[in-house]
Amino acid sequence: MKPLALTMGEPAGIGAEIAAGAWRLLREGGPRFVLLDDARRDFGVPVRRVDGPEQATDAFADAMPVLHRPLSAAPVPGRPDIANAPLVIAAIEEAVALARAGRVGAVVTNPIQKSVLAAAGFPHPGHTEFLGALAGTGVPPVMMLACPGLRVVPVTVHEALARAIARLRPADIVATSRVVAAALRAQFGIARPRLAIAGLNPHAGEDGTMGREDIEVVAPAVAALRVEGIDARGPLPPDTMFTALARPTYDAAICLYHDQALIPIKTLDMAGGVNVTLGLSILRTSPDHGTALDIAGKGRADPSSLVAALRLAAELSDRKAQA
Amino acid sequence: MKPLALTMGEPAGIGAEIAAGAWRLLREGGPRFVLLDDARRDFGVPVRRVDGPEQATDAFADAMPVLHRPLSAAPVPGRPDIANAPLVIAAIEEAVALARAGRVGAVVTNPIQKSVLAAAGFPHPGHTEFLGALAGTGVPPVMMLACPGLRVVPVTVHEALARAIARLRPADIVATSRVVAAALRAQFGIARPRLAIAGLNPHAGEDGTMGREDIEVVAPAVAALRVEGIDARGPLPPDTMFTALARPTYDAAICLYHDQALIPIKTLDMAGGVNVTLGLSILRTSPDHGTALDIAGKGRADPSSLVAALRLAAELSDRKAQA
Repeated sequence: MKPLALTMGEPAGIGAEIAAGAWRLLREGGPRFVLLDDARRDFGVPVRRVDGPEQATDAFADAMPVLHRPLSAAPVPGRPDIANAPLVIAAIEEAVALARAGRVGAVVTNPIQKSVLAAAGFPHPGHTEFLGALAGTGVPPVMMLACPGLRVVPVTVHEALARAIARLRPADIVATSRVVAAALRAQFGIARPRLAIAGLNPHAGEDGTMGREDIEVVAPAVAALRVEGIDARGPLPPDTMFTALARPTYDAAICLYHDQALIPIKTLDMAGGVNVTLGLSILRTSPDHGTALDIAGKGRADPSSLVAALRLAAELSDRKAQA
Repeated sequence: MKPLALTMGEPAGIGAEIAAGAWRLLREGGPRFVLLDDARRDFGVPVRRVDGPEQATDAFADAMPVLHRPLSAAPVPGRPDIANAPLVIAAIEEAVALARAGRVGAVVTNPIQKSVLAAAGFPHPGHTEFLGALAGTGVPPVMMLACPGLRVVPVTVHEALARAIARLRPADIVATSRVVAAALRAQFGIARPRLAIAGLNPHAGEDGTMGREDIEVVAPAVAALRVEGIDARGPLPPDTMFTALARPTYDAAICLYHDQALIPIKTLDMAGGVNVTLGLSILRTSPDHGTALDIAGKGRADPSSLVAALRLAAELSDRKAQA
């Protein structure tokens, strides 16, 4: 079992705290990781500087292994410093390179502060697009959120809801669903993934009496997926597809907009969901929260979503190693 | 404690079965109700014909009390008969009249088949609007869905999502929120109700970078409510306002569209939410599901949402009696 690479994320955020918290929870028997960060920081736990991820496994029970990547400015909790932006980006690039070289089993990323990276000239809207540029496979990378008992994928993400609806095309739903079906087969070991395709309108439009999109956009996408041999059902009434009875009937819910996917998983999940990027040549997960600048450095950050991200990354990595 | 009036709903649906199931579960110590239905039907439980709701309380432990209202056609499960539509409507009217006369504490309605009633000339889209006509108070009646730990209210309901967004005005949010705040005070005994007003766009638009509606429509409504002395917060990011940590911070979530309200409550609630109509001169609740024609008569219908509706109706009625 290969160790995982964990990036620093925004140094002024909660990344260092939750990394240390995750190490405490995982040091006895959990998945091994190496943190790419400045080893001189006060993590509040014992730290072991290592020269490569290969040394992380032996060190892990006694100290948190760190690949020392010195920052330009000492991090101040809650106050991102643009001087560190190149190091934040370099840690992501290096983690991906380690995964591509087979030296780590997967990449787990701490949250970044997008506005700071953008101000430093970073051209990507977020991790997902950057990872697509670093380790793409010719398809758009897809964000999946997973928690016990539910996986959701938004077809549209960070755009105004009215615009997302107006621009939605069957091809978008088909392209996303294809990536999801392929990843569930290849990475999650599900031989015949069942996809539940959400409708857009209340009750999925009730035969067109409440909006035509379910008939004109969603239904053709479902039909096209079925022609390709993908087990897709829908458009399903959005409000009843996430009930306790409905959730076990599919392997992933394909949702048409951000909150249609994120509301149910965040309503459901106590411990913090995990973000998995599908459609890359490497495995990547991340916690499902931001940098939490408001509580950084106060010892209040909860590492459970990062722990869940590390555990899922290890599970996917081990399955890949055995395949 | 006054008994409750339970309407028959669609005779070809699951109403009779869940009424009998609720009686079984409630006969020992639960709230008392009288069913307005044809007493000749086979309910699968002992039935007592009563002349008025006043007789229901004594009868309840031994048999399900029924105000005999003969149907025109013997009900066939799964096959609604338009001949019975006038009786379905009359039962709702009579239950409301009993509540207005103070002879029952509240009205609980079984699901109706809207298409059948519409074909019979019923001019209202559903129960809520009909009840507004029968027992309105000069404000639009408002649908609230409640389960343990969460109450949600959709500002727009059964219309295409794109249309609901395009038509949404601050006045709609304000009018609905006022009714909710007043009802939480008067009927639910919450002295200073806290309202969480949902945003529309992902992350509530992130300062207008993902849609302007949160700034131009939702924020002004929240400001207007606060000027009126209503404890309203928002626009809140829709995906994080329903988490386990967030739910206890408000008494009702005011949601902008059908699924923003219904997805979280149906994701959360195992036993079936309860629909409460606010803004009427009477108390009214109903189970949060439809007529279930596909399983009617098969003994598979789950009475738990109706039981929850009866319990909440009794709780609100008793609080009113004590006030």
